[in-house]
Amino acid sequence: MLTSTPFPKRFPKSFASDNHAGVHPAVLTAILKANTGDALPYGGDVWTTAMEDAFRAEFGARATAYPMFNGTGANVVGLGLVLRAYDAVLCPTTAHINTNECGAAERMLGAKLVTLPTDDGKLSVNDIRGQLSVLGNEHHSQPRVVSISQVTECGTCYTVDEIAELAEFVHEHDLFLHMDGARLANAAAELGCSLRSLTTDAGVDLLSFGGTKNGAMGAEALVVLRPELDPAALFLRKQGMQLASKMRFVSAQLTALLTGELWRENAAHANAMAHRLANGIAGLPEVSLRYPVQSNAVFPVLPEKAIAELQQRYLFHVWDAAENVVRWVTAFDTAPEHVDTFVADIRLAVQEAVGF
Amino acid sequence: MLTSTPFPKRFPKSFASDNHAGVHPAVLTAILKANTGDALPYGGDVWTTAMEDAFRAEFGARATAYPMFNGTGANVVGLGLVLRAYDAVLCPTTAHINTNECGAAERMLGAKLVTLPTDDGKLSVNDIRGQLSVLGNEHHSQPRVVSISQVTECGTCYTVDEIAELAEFVHEHDLFLHMDGARLANAAAELGCSLRSLTTDAGVDLLSFGGTKNGAMGAEALVVLRPELDPAALFLRKQGMQLASKMRFVSAQLTALLTGELWRENAAHANAMAHRLANGIAGLPEVSLRYPVQSNAVFPVLPEKAIAELQQRYLFHVWDAAENVVRWVTAFDTAPEHVDTFVADIRLAVQEAVGF
Amino acid sequence: MLTSTPFPKRFPKSFASDNHAGVHPAVLTAILKANTGDALPYGGDVWTTAMEDAFRAEFGARATAYPMFNGTGANVVGLGLVLRAYDAVLCPTTAHINTNECGAAERMLGAKLVTLPTDDGKLSVNDIRGQLSVLGNEHHSQPRVVSISQVTECGTCYTVDEIAELAEFVHEHDLFLHMDGARLANAAAELGCSLRSLTTDAGVDLLSFGGTKNGAMGAEALVVLRPELDPAALFLRKQGMQLASKMRFVSAQLTALLTGELWRENAAHANAMAHRLANGIAGLPEVSLRYPVQSNAVFPVLPEKAIAELQQRYLFHVWDAAENVVRWVTAFDTAPEHVDTFVADIRLAVQEAVGF
Amino acid sequence: MLTSTPFPKRFPKSFASDNHAGVHPAVLTAILKANTGDALPYGGDVWTTAMEDAFRAEFGARATAYPMFNGTGANVVGLGLVLRAYDAVLCPTTAHINTNECGAAERMLGAKLVTLPTDDGKLSVNDIRGQLSVLGNEHHSQPRVVSISQVTECGTCYTVDEIAELAEFVHEHDLFLHMDGARLANAAAELGCSLRSLTTDAGVDLLSFGGTKNGAMGAEALVVLRPELDPAALFLRKQGMQLASKMRFVSAQLTALLTGELWRENAAHANAMAHRLANGIAGLPEVSLRYPVQSNAVFPVLPEKAIAELQQRYLFHVWDAAENVVRWVTAFDTAPEHVDTFVADIRLAVQEAVGF
Repeated sequence: MLTSTPFPKRFPKSFASDNHAGVHPAVLTAILKANTGDALPYGGDVWTTAMEDAFRAEFGARATAYPMFNGTGANVVGLGLVLRAYDAVLCPTTAHINTNECGAAERMLGAKLVTLPTDDGKLSVNDIRGQLSVLGNEHHSQPRVVSISQVTECGTCYTVDEIAELAEFVHEHDLFLHMDGARLANAAAELGCSLRSLTTDAGVDLLSFGGTKNGAMGAEALVVLRPELDPAALFLRKQGMQLASKMRFVSAQLTALLTGELWRENAAHANAMAHRLANGIAGLPEVSLRYPVQSNAVFPVLPEKAIAELQQRYLFHVWDAAENVVRWVTAFDTAPEHVDTFVADIRLAVQEAVGF
Repeated sequence: MLTSTPFPKRFPKSFASDNHAGVHPAVLTAILKANTGDALPYGGDVWTTAMEDAFRAEFGARATAYPMFNGTGANVVGLGLVLRAYDAVLCPTTAHINTNECGAAERMLGAKLVTLPTDDGKLSVNDIRGQLSVLGNEHHSQPRVVSISQVTECGTCYTVDEIAELAEFVHEHDLFLHMDGARLANAAAELGCSLRSLTTDAGVDLLSFGGTKNGAMGAEALVVLRPELDPAALFLRKQGMQLASKMRFVSAQLTALLTGELWRENAAHANAMAHRLANGIAGLPEVSLRYPVQSNAVFPVLPEKAIAELQQRYLFHVWDAAENVVRWVTAFDTAPEHVDTFVADIRLAVQEAVGF
Repeated sequence: MLTSTPFPKRFPKSFASDNHAGVHPAVLTAILKANTGDALPYGGDVWTTAMEDAFRAEFGARATAYPMFNGTGANVVGLGLVLRAYDAVLCPTTAHINTNECGAAERMLGAKLVTLPTDDGKLSVNDIRGQLSVLGNEHHSQPRVVSISQVTECGTCYTVDEIAELAEFVHEHDLFLHMDGARLANAAAELGCSLRSLTTDAGVDLLSFGGTKNGAMGAEALVVLRPELDPAALFLRKQGMQLASKMRFVSAQLTALLTGELWRENAAHANAMAHRLANGIAGLPEVSLRYPVQSNAVFPVLPEKAIAELQQRYLFHVWDAAENVVRWVTAFDTAPEHVDTFVADIRLAVQEAVGF
Repeated sequence: MLTSTPFPKRFPKSFASDNHAGVHPAVLTAILKANTGDALPYGGDVWTTAMEDAFRAEFGARATAYPMFNGTGANVVGLGLVLRAYDAVLCPTTAHINTNECGAAERMLGAKLVTLPTDDGKLSVNDIRGQLSVLGNEHHSQPRVVSISQVTECGTCYTVDEIAELAEFVHEHDLFLHMDGARLANAAAELGCSLRSLTTDAGVDLLSFGGTKNGAMGAEALVVLRPELDPAALFLRKQGMQLASKMRFVSAQLTALLTGELWRENAAHANAMAHRLANGIAGLPEVSLRYPVQSNAVFPVLPEKAIAELQQRYLFHVWDAAENVVRWVTAFDTAPEHVDTFVADIRLAVQEAVGF
């Protein structure tokens, strides 16, 4: 656990995660505006209605959005809509639901995760095909849903065509396609497309839509893209401890991000900062990129000595200690100056490490 | 589900629940102040440290507070700290964990709830004693923790002595005492005592501390009062989908309520409004109180016709349709004028119903 | 826990439970006959096919039987076929699934049991009706299945009409009717009707059929009476740890009981012994029956002193210590002499206790 | 699912699994002998006491054996003794608990399985070490127990030293070592050592001991080798639907196998038949062994055409279709003539396939 020293005193802008950032002013304004006396709780308020409308405008008329407190909650409730007691989720080994949710899917849903190794966090049809021979055999958990992350945990993006190909394949086999979209905004910004083209139109059935990393205070949404999957959602959200009584204050955050495509503005800026950072270290000796930069994260391989040096002054995580890969993440409020100063320090640290 | 029409247009102040209210200005100010650039996520921030200190100041040096998103989350994570796979929770039939959490305890914890009928929502030592004969017998779920609500779901309060007697008894039998304190502030305000006297000092082991109904935007806390129960808390909170990444904004709300006993001010006001309301209907024909008024809720028995008439213009819930009991709840922002207008309308409706 | 002294040395025939008895010779013979070299495991054998046919002959062409190891297994797998994540089982407080399965339904299924008090272990339509107002409300576990025991844990029987009335009511509300038939044979023998008339024809959807207490070594069956509920059965049985690899030896036991209505012969004998026992104590001073004798169990109220005296020489359980109710159970191998000797001793003990 | 045609009619001795075999005569005799009138249920009988003694004689005075219905039951109850809500099991990808129990561990225990690839089904210390960096970090399931299979699912055996090294390592890190010993007898027979040397003395904490594949009708045991892990066993067995009411008939089977080392005789014979089979195909063109033969299973690579030809007349499973690996398993009742006839047919099929 990192120390609880406040950032400004000791560290410059964090490159550890986009959840180190604060709240975008427009989100705070929306919260303040929602504080007008009484409102019906549990979503019976006008702000939640407006939020639902905003999601339908973005994802299509058949989409229904359910505010959730965090990404794990959205993932668990969403997967719960399709999993029967004996079902398995197929996902990359790197999936957040596998590595970073403390076994919530197994515990809260009783689900088996069948984890598939990948090069870059992206599943292919072939990865899935190999798992389907157990269908119908009572000795084995039954593959029921494929879960992909867009952006992946490696910072990479699926193209629209790649998602559509996965969706077509899983639907042919009566499975479902779930997307962990904690950073979906970053993917859409990078690919220059709509949220809808990456989800509804590509055949995604269930989406965890991330707001918090995009500038919200704490707001995610489960977006159900096939209405026939909806009926259990209210119950699973309540039982899953994700039902906000004063929901208007969560809904208002999501609406703020969807209004005027603020989500795209925030994500595009963060992505641009990641590219600026990657460009800044291009060509440095003994430095390379573990994955291509396709969002707001950079995964460079650095000299071990440089990592140690930089971690004394900057906050970021080591991704793969054995191979000296680190992870740098930019946010909606990362400034060009933050990046440039960081790049300068990186260059110095690398030069010192490689001794030229 | 009630309609989503915003309140101000159609209804006066709601008497349906204290979660219809908005956010207290001091809480919003605290949120705004916490939005100062980067902070470590997941509680590694100074606002969370301050919150923990504030809880220790209130509940004693051995108390540790864990922010949670809602009361169900706090209850589930708290009970999870003591329940083994084969354990039962003893609770009143009226307990929120039994009636209003969509089976979260059963589903998320695999726990059995052994529900005990009560007159007024309060358990006694005798109620519990009768359940202990199965201890040690593998055919039966093992009573492990007694869960009481303070304030109860009937609006009644346990005295300090009653809680202490329960705690002593359960500890003698190696059980634990859990308190659902969604409205603990209202009890302390009503009884004129400290939060600590009702919990730590009385022998409570685990507390769900409610902030949302007291004026927060959305902030509850699990307060672990016996340090030996702590180790699993971080894991169960994460797995239980209750870990806020930008936790500072939840912590700041709790700190705001604890600062200068704002919690007491808010609760005392709400309680006073409930008493004002109860006093206002005292002596009306065919009107009585189902439970004594000991907090911010009134449970009157009304003529059926009066209920129907009043529900056309006021928001409140029917508590027991068969016996014409309704529930009125006041909040930190219920004004005396709200109550007085309501009382006047109640009197008219009752008079019309009973025909005098 | 009782001591492990073998019965013959210290005690005469047990009246504690019908599971103290051994195995009926016809069952053992069937087991021996099934031991003919290789067979396909997991039910792919001819003995299992024959067992399935025998159940269809008894319960109708749409019935499918799944051998299970014990009654808890049959109950859990059966209920699991209809319960969604947020569902509740409505059952009497006395139900075996509530009181004697160590919370298996809650743990293994995540289900909530809504327990309803009864006079004699039997639910009525009115008991159920009162629980349906929460349907559709996300805050509450959703009633999904009503579980009744035939014979009940109080030794009483539902009539065919009572079951049919319950079935009709629950089906009108889109619920299911589950029957814990650990002693279904005793009910059919007592009522002089077919197994089918009490189940399939009365509208039961799911049945736990008991073999062990009827003379098997260890064999129960889940009988699914509505084919549309079948698809998950194989998976839930496997996952629920109830799939026998050498299934033929379980199937053969069940077939033996169904062949030539051996089940009825065994049950009728046990019932007759219970009536003989009840008749034997009729008219004794300070002795009464807590429940009518309608199967192979007698629940007499005895003088406390007589209970203590008798327990020194006979094995039986106290049912309600506060009210001096004990439970006597007879089995397929209880002889008239066993009963007569017991009756004589009871009479002496009672006489001594009441002092005449 | 294979068809339900009885074996004798169509197929010679099965090589598909040792659970295709029937029951050893000594086991049946023991069952018959246990059928002597009444006995206390749930293990309070003399046969169960004798079984417990037999296990202590074999595994040491601190061992306690709990009869279970099947291997999945033994694994789930055993792992349940050490797993907290947020814990993970580390196991090979090939582990039966991962691949062949329909997600029972995930569903019944809420456990995460962290699956590690291996060459031959055997875990090493290095495999485990790489998973321990997450200890103490709330975002990740906590490694708590390492589960190994002896014999592995690949038919290979750990040596005593390999087990001891694993045990020492996991204990150093406060983890536990669980062994799925569905075929432990075969390992001890192959290695020429005692059951104890492979378990208790090597540091195993929890053992699933297999009886069914060794000649029992249906009897496995959880053997707890560290008494401090015992307290929950009775409760988890009951709740886990593994508690036999007429337990004597399960216990008697286990005692029969332990008496006079019948387990070793049965296992040694099966192993010898596997070696005879492997020797019989040695040197055949385009035939090799995927894993070394170290128990009663042979995993040959065969020409695809030969597999198809042989499956028309023999029962066995394809292990890896992509690489033409099949699995042959021998049993206590596999005769040398069965093997020799099979070998002759294999030779013909291979010759025809490779065209010489």
